[in-house]
Amino acid sequence: MKVRDIGEFALIRVIQGMVEKESSAEEAPFPLVLGIGDDAAAWQSREATELATTDTLVEDVHFRHDFTSWDDLGWKAVAVNLSDIAAMGGVPLYALVTLGLRPETEVEEVRGLYRGMLSACRGYGCRIAGGDLVRSPVTFITVAMTGIASGHLLTRRDAQPGDVVAATGHLGCAAGGLRALLQGQSPEGESAKHLHKAHVRPSPRLAEGQVLVQQGVRAAMDISDGLIDDLSRMCVASGVGAVVYADQVPVDAFLRESFPQDCLSLALDGGEDYELLFAASKEVVSRVVARLAIPVSVLGTIVADHPGEVRVVDGYGAELHIDQRGWDHFR
Amino acid sequence: MKVRDIGEFALIRVIQGMVEKESSAEEAPFPLVLGIGDDAAAWQSREATELATTDTLVEDVHFRHDFTSWDDLGWKAVAVNLSDIAAMGGVPLYALVTLGLRPETEVEEVRGLYRGMLSACRGYGCRIAGGDLVRSPVTFITVAMTGIASGHLLTRRDAQPGDVVAATGHLGCAAGGLRALLQGQSPEGESAKHLHKAHVRPSPRLAEGQVLVQQGVRAAMDISDGLIDDLSRMCVASGVGAVVYADQVPVDAFLRESFPQDCLSLALDGGEDYELLFAASKEVVSRVVARLAIPVSVLGTIVADHPGEVRVVDGYGAELHIDQRGWDHFR
Repeated sequence: MKVRDIGEFALIRVIQGMVEKESSAEEAPFPLVLGIGDDAAAWQSREATELATTDTLVEDVHFRHDFTSWDDLGWKAVAVNLSDIAAMGGVPLYALVTLGLRPETEVEEVRGLYRGMLSACRGYGCRIAGGDLVRSPVTFITVAMTGIASGHLLTRRDAQPGDVVAATGHLGCAAGGLRALLQGQSPEGESAKHLHKAHVRPSPRLAEGQVLVQQGVRAAMDISDGLIDDLSRMCVASGVGAVVYADQVPVDAFLRESFPQDCLSLALDGGEDYELLFAASKEVVSRVVARLAIPVSVLGTIVADHPGEVRVVDGYGAELHIDQRGWDHFR
Repeated sequence: MKVRDIGEFALIRVIQGMVEKESSAEEAPFPLVLGIGDDAAAWQSREATELATTDTLVEDVHFRHDFTSWDDLGWKAVAVNLSDIAAMGGVPLYALVTLGLRPETEVEEVRGLYRGMLSACRGYGCRIAGGDLVRSPVTFITVAMTGIASGHLLTRRDAQPGDVVAATGHLGCAAGGLRALLQGQSPEGESAKHLHKAHVRPSPRLAEGQVLVQQGVRAAMDISDGLIDDLSRMCVASGVGAVVYADQVPVDAFLRESFPQDCLSLALDGGEDYELLFAASKEVVSRVVARLAIPVSVLGTIVADHPGEVRVVDGYGAELHIDQRGWDHFR
């Protein structure tokens, strides 16, 4: 059986099984609060809950050098980790940066990469503390990031039936930006620039994560793989189901203008928006909405039935299904 | 100017310059004690000095699948990080594991990798807390590890003129094991097995690092690139020079038997032994020797002149020089 046959998530379960069997054996000085399976790992020190996460970008898998400047690549490598810390309700501390570089990489390109990384760090209060440089036939960037949570953690396993499902910002723009690049469109014009920026310079929602904690949200994650996939993961972790109202999914005017046919599909399935997805009571969500400067959309409900499943319904309550052309009333 | 033209250490200095300019801007809640340039980064929380390090193994750069079993690869990926924590005088806490995998990798191979990693973790009190799985055209394993130091840190910058230079264990065996593999020798016979094991299953010196701290050593690092290269780095960081006595360098009988001509060169220049290299007063080193179960060799002296340089002398005090065939009296 090969890795491609069982896929990423089954392989994670294999690994999780091996690791968790081991971990019960003895107690660490800083006990583990959350291991494999959430946005970050967490352990308890006397003064705070400490967080650690890691994310990797591989050439021609996660980015292409012909589409992505080294500055943007640096920004994104740090931003996706900041987003994981945000999704736990934490603040970032330090980053370790591992670069796998081809020997023919220009030093100026590496400087560009660090300019992008330092710019993202500066914007969100993180610092680079170390790392590793290795030769590699393919460029890759692994950032490992630590952080602290002074309040409770935002986890994937705390969604409750009756909660409403909400998301910050707009969805699908990053996927729209990528699709435009793949179609050979240059990012000109206001809409194209907006989508391109969403793809290459995502904004981690750190301040927003803090507001979620302060207002009593307990279930949250960031949207990295797409709304439906990520909400499904929250549902599996929480043992609940969810209904998403297609007409409440936040599709912005730029995405609608650029992709009038596919904007809903991009918003439901497109990844890399790095917005926060959360579930809480209506009252809690109302308080969050009142305190955030960016838009928040209530786009669904957590239900007790169909655990692990996400169903998408239209404005009349009729279920939509996905096929190769996107979400539709018919499979 | 390309990365291969300036090399790893000049590139680290470029990066260090950019990062340190940035870091002075504001103070973090857990202030940074050591950034880029030592075995691990360190910051101060209220209850401990926290450590973080990361090391990567890339296929065909750091290992070859035809030489290295997945179990051994897993052991080594964790052990090299444990060694960095040991070299700071710390104890390990948690590891994050990033795997870059070809889609055709067998699931059983990944299980083997984790068996090796968990075995190293179990032996030294570390736990795997999370990580990332990515598709990659080449296998790579990045481990990021956290730890704590309850005493003072062992750094590279604290060597003083008059200190003696010492190392734990024997040197050159890992390089001998690698050379035997490259020459197509199968690891049969006691010597060959010993060298092979030194190459694929290095022992991080965690308990020994603790003894160094307790006995008052302040300057230490692990030997990953070879005695001379690594001691040079300690000399540069401390602004001192060093003299190494060739006849005191610990070459074991197995290495001498397998490579009678080259054993000294392998011990001086061969990397990946992951022994601890340290500098301290004679009295402190004597106390360390008395308390360690493994051999410790006093192999040199720290001097004030020739800062940043390491000179190797024979039993009569005559300087040896290195050429393509190894260390000799003549260049």
